[in-house]
Amino acid sequence: MSLDRLIEAIVEKQNPTVAGLDPKLGYIPSFIKEEAYARYGKNLEGAAAALLEYNRRLIDALCDVVPAVKPQCAYYEMYGWPGMRALQETISYAKEKGLFVITDGKRNDIGATMEAYAAAHLGLTEVEGESLCAFGGDALTVNGYLGTDGIRPVWEVCSRWDKGMFVLVKTSNESSGELQNQELEGGETIYATMGQLCEQWGEHLPGRYGYSGVGAVVGATYPQQLQELRKSLPHTFFLVPGYGAQGGGAADVAWGFDANGLGAVVNSSRAILCAWQKEQCRAEDFAQAARREAERMRDDIVRHVGAIRLP
Amino acid sequence: MSLDRLIEAIVEKQNPTVAGLDPKLGYIPSFIKEEAYARYGKNLEGAAAALLEYNRRLIDALCDVVPAVKPQCAYYEMYGWPGMRALQETISYAKEKGLFVITDGKRNDIGATMEAYAAAHLGLTEVEGESLCAFGGDALTVNGYLGTDGIRPVWEVCSRWDKGMFVLVKTSNESSGELQNQELEGGETIYATMGQLCEQWGEHLPGRYGYSGVGAVVGATYPQQLQELRKSLPHTFFLVPGYGAQGGGAADVAWGFDANGLGAVVNSSRAILCAWQKEQCRAEDFAQAARREAERMRDDIVRHVGAIRLP
Repeated sequence: MSLDRLIEAIVEKQNPTVAGLDPKLGYIPSFIKEEAYARYGKNLEGAAAALLEYNRRLIDALCDVVPAVKPQCAYYEMYGWPGMRALQETISYAKEKGLFVITDGKRNDIGATMEAYAAAHLGLTEVEGESLCAFGGDALTVNGYLGTDGIRPVWEVCSRWDKGMFVLVKTSNESSGELQNQELEGGETIYATMGQLCEQWGEHLPGRYGYSGVGAVVGATYPQQLQELRKSLPHTFFLVPGYGAQGGGAADVAWGFDANGLGAVVNSSRAILCAWQKEQCRAEDFAQAARREAERMRDDIVRHVGAIRLP
Repeated sequence: MSLDRLIEAIVEKQNPTVAGLDPKLGYIPSFIKEEAYARYGKNLEGAAAALLEYNRRLIDALCDVVPAVKPQCAYYEMYGWPGMRALQETISYAKEKGLFVITDGKRNDIGATMEAYAAAHLGLTEVEGESLCAFGGDALTVNGYLGTDGIRPVWEVCSRWDKGMFVLVKTSNESSGELQNQELEGGETIYATMGQLCEQWGEHLPGRYGYSGVGAVVGATYPQQLQELRKSLPHTFFLVPGYGAQGGGAADVAWGFDANGLGAVVNSSRAILCAWQKEQCRAEDFAQAARREAERMRDDIVRHVGAIRLP
């Protein structure tokens, strides 16, 4: 159930990382953009077409290396509805290639509204008795500030369609402590409290390998908190951003893992997407450069984590 | 600047309310749906076309009564990219009709990613030197759990394009207290702390009428907290959900207002959208029923708030 499919894919590929698909136009080789603009114009549709083609080629090159991809909604939404169509087509293509898709939307709302988000990104949308797929990811990042009313609709959809979620707990950014690190009267921090809520919510989505379908986002940039939370949240799988460009190293992210090499999946976006620019290789080789970087990242992390096995 | 245009529209129409455009298929009269399905099929495009036509007729009927509309992203996103196109076309139509548009997306992220959301919903998207409008709302609801890194990109876009935002502070739902009501070591609640952050962030977006461009979402279902926050956050304009269907009355929401009848805008969605079903009037009259309910709501609230004037 839930995040079990992700865990199985991690074990199969011996790779606890996820490639972030955050395609900025500046990352995309000119030959792809020019072709898209020639066809659709220098507009939102042209940009969205370039994004999609870039993603497809990346997915082709990465699909036997990484277990999962994580498209960040914002980079599609900024191109309006054509961008959202590119998001849907990216997700669909990634799933065809056997990848687990984590849609990074950090969505949050309550009741029927959160049900609508859950239907959009994880479940199906009903139109006069027809069940239709709007975006179709396998897991969704969510923000738990509104409490259980904002999470229950997601776990209900996850339970029905074998999907999962990741709740923001301790984010990787510099100002994450402004709110998250504040201590409550009992001495616990806000992020630790949110983590405990994840454990509670997770009871509704038990998994086969000890981890529930309610994961948590915990940044690689705070290794001490990552270590602390790995201990205090034994059933909560972590999505770990902040490796690489944001400053977290393999020794830092290693704190997120358990003795079986499970418990976390580490994201890298920019380093993979821009590998061809960093390597200064031919633009035509961008996808192979991304693959080389994804392999390097895998090897770097596995060196610290060891072999990954099911419990 | 910022939320000043909303404030001016509220004074002009002597109406401190906003009509929530949360169009569920069950709310839409059959004659609209059948026409849309006949044209596009019983699929996401057909549903999205029905949403848009429903919204257009509502906007026509409401545009001289209410100062603003608030489309809830989730109800568009659940219909995939055609739904997002209906969202964009709804926003565009509402603006043509002179309405202020609050896009209820509760978006949150950090740095360049949050910039992308801000560009999507409030600013413009650059494609090879062309500046294009993705969704084009006037204000966006956001979630501040990630701290200043998640809000700065929004206030920068707001400052440039004369837009505003509403940060979730104390939400209207039953479980909002699970996290938001917890007390920090100093004795302040989390929601009060988030409120103080709004006051600080608002210093970057000062307004002409005493309220900054950084508003707060505070639910009508918690009148005591609404009263407390109105006092402690003198520069923060409130978006107040929870009136009507969720249980908040006019006497409750009145706590959100200042001596000039300013300081808050009260949302109603379901009561307006479903007025024709409640009245059991002809389906063809749904938009006029919505208008009657919007007028009733305005009168109910203004009775408690009094005449609204600029300071």
